[in-house]
Amino acid sequence: MFIGKVVGTVWATKKVENLKNLRFLLVQPVDIEKEETKSIVVAADPLGAGPGELVLVSFGRAARLACGNENISIEAAVVGIIDSIEMNRLAFKNAVETFDEIKKRLEERGVKIDETGNS
Amino acid sequence: MFIGKVVGTVWATKKVENLKNLRFLLVQPVDIEKEETKSIVVAADPLGAGPGELVLVSFGRAARLACGNENISIEAAVVGIIDSIEMNRLAFKNAVETFDEIKKRLEERGVKIDETGNS
Amino acid sequence: MFIGKVVGTVWATKKVENLKNLRFLLVQPVDIEKEETKSIVVAADPLGAGPGELVLVSFGRAARLACGNENISIEAAVVGIIDSIEMNRLAFKNAVETFDEIKKRLEERGVKIDETGNS
Amino acid sequence: MFIGKVVGTVWATKKVENLKNLRFLLVQPVDIEKEETKSIVVAADPLGAGPGELVLVSFGRAARLACGNENISIEAAVVGIIDSIEMNRLAFKNAVETFDEIKKRLEERGVKIDETGNS
Amino acid sequence: MFIGKVVGTVWATKKVENLKNLRFLLVQPVDIEKEETKSIVVAADPLGAGPGELVLVSFGRAARLACGNENISIEAAVVGIIDSIEMNRLAFKNAVETFDEIKKRLEERGVKIDETGNS
Repeated sequence: MFIGKVVGTVWATKKVENLKNLRFLLVQPVDIEKEETKSIVVAADPLGAGPGELVLVSFGRAARLACGNENISIEAAVVGIIDSIEMNRLAFKNAVETFDEIKKRLEERGVKIDETGNS
Repeated sequence: MFIGKVVGTVWATKKVENLKNLRFLLVQPVDIEKEETKSIVVAADPLGAGPGELVLVSFGRAARLACGNENISIEAAVVGIIDSIEMNRLAFKNAVETFDEIKKRLEERGVKIDETGNS
Repeated sequence: MFIGKVVGTVWATKKVENLKNLRFLLVQPVDIEKEETKSIVVAADPLGAGPGELVLVSFGRAARLACGNENISIEAAVVGIIDSIEMNRLAFKNAVETFDEIKKRLEERGVKIDETGNS
Repeated sequence: MFIGKVVGTVWATKKVENLKNLRFLLVQPVDIEKEETKSIVVAADPLGAGPGELVLVSFGRAARLACGNENISIEAAVVGIIDSIEMNRLAFKNAVETFDEIKKRLEERGVKIDETGNS
Repeated sequence: MFIGKVVGTVWATKKVENLKNLRFLLVQPVDIEKEETKSIVVAADPLGAGPGELVLVSFGRAARLACGNENISIEAAVVGIIDSIEMNRLAFKNAVETFDEIKKRLEERGVKIDETGNS
């Protein structure tokens, strides 16, 4: 699964019959690369996520299960709306980049990180 | 799923028996990277999409379901023809890049973006 | 699915029992990136494609269906031998790169493109 | 499967019904690229891995099997907690980069490599 | 499927129950990019491949079939040990890069290429 931000909606009147009544969101993956990835993923949304919200997205059969129907032509769906992301400072102890650099970069993209492991 | 633009057609006379009577489109993925991705994806087309149209493409079993036959040798298919793409200005509020830069870049590639969240 | 060119053959005497009597081709994906991708994909070949031919390759269950046996340890197969690729000039009308640049780049790699949409 | 380091946790109160009682970890893939990949993968964790631990992650149905339920909306899960990674010096004999450069780079990221094949 | 070189072994005492008695190899993908890809793939090994050997790796259900058990939490496995790789000189006739450059680059990485199509 990956974490993404809901940035828009896609509308398609003409579509495969089994896709009626589904909502399709534009989701921008959130990663911690220096150069932000801006691939657009379209995900079905059974949870009613709003613009700007961080969501958890699953692919494949997992996505169809999330929509309650295994026989629909989707392979990506929002499966959770994220309350918080915790990153552990100690897990980065020997890393090339420090926790603080990564945290700062994510915050510039509007993603707040809670810190654990600092005691 | 991803958004792509139909840019052509692929013809193959000699093919696996279960692929007779299918139409194969060349689809160029649309993303918002600075350097446009130009990977060619070939997708079966059960909807009759025309050149230049924006389409929604699904992979795997979802694609076979779209063609109405689970036992064909494809793993990508057009599942919708896109009417409009809305992007939410507020979702980009704290992002490194602004909504306007992304919108401009997509429009240079022929993709019109409707704007929401600007009130 | 993707378009690739057959550039070689892989031989493996010691292999999983269910792979006996299959032919494995080296396939170089054809895309329109400025820097050519040179990832090597190995695909089973139920069609008898020859070196230098352009082929259509499917992944996953689609590949096993192409080989007529769902219980073999492959996840890529040649599903068609490509006669011609048509690209539509009008589909690129507003694109950053022109049809002619892309066509030229593909032809330098030995891929001939037929043109439609020029009237 | 890939090797990753547990760097955090993701919390989502509102989620698809079949995801209740699952723990979601942030896992940073470990590879040996010069530029570290920092894509965030979210994986369900049936094993109770702790921050900073190296884990083995599987995708797709393999992940659902690891969680003991094929009907949940996940497609990535921790399937093992790694004790040690051995790399074979001789396997790199003719490589462009030497074993020692790769070992050093991984150790800078907190990944200890045991060496074999040096006799 | 892809071609990789066995460069090590991964040990995990604590793992999902269905993974007991499986051997996990570190496999480095072999491609012909100028910059070598150094993503680490972990693959189950039902064939007993040794360090430095070139192997064919399959993903997904194909991998589970190779291990003789569809209900294990793996999605990559060694399915063949490669004897030789033939590349066809003529298939590269119009390519930007020549056969000889690619052959040389692979040999620097310890991969010997047999040549066909030169008559």
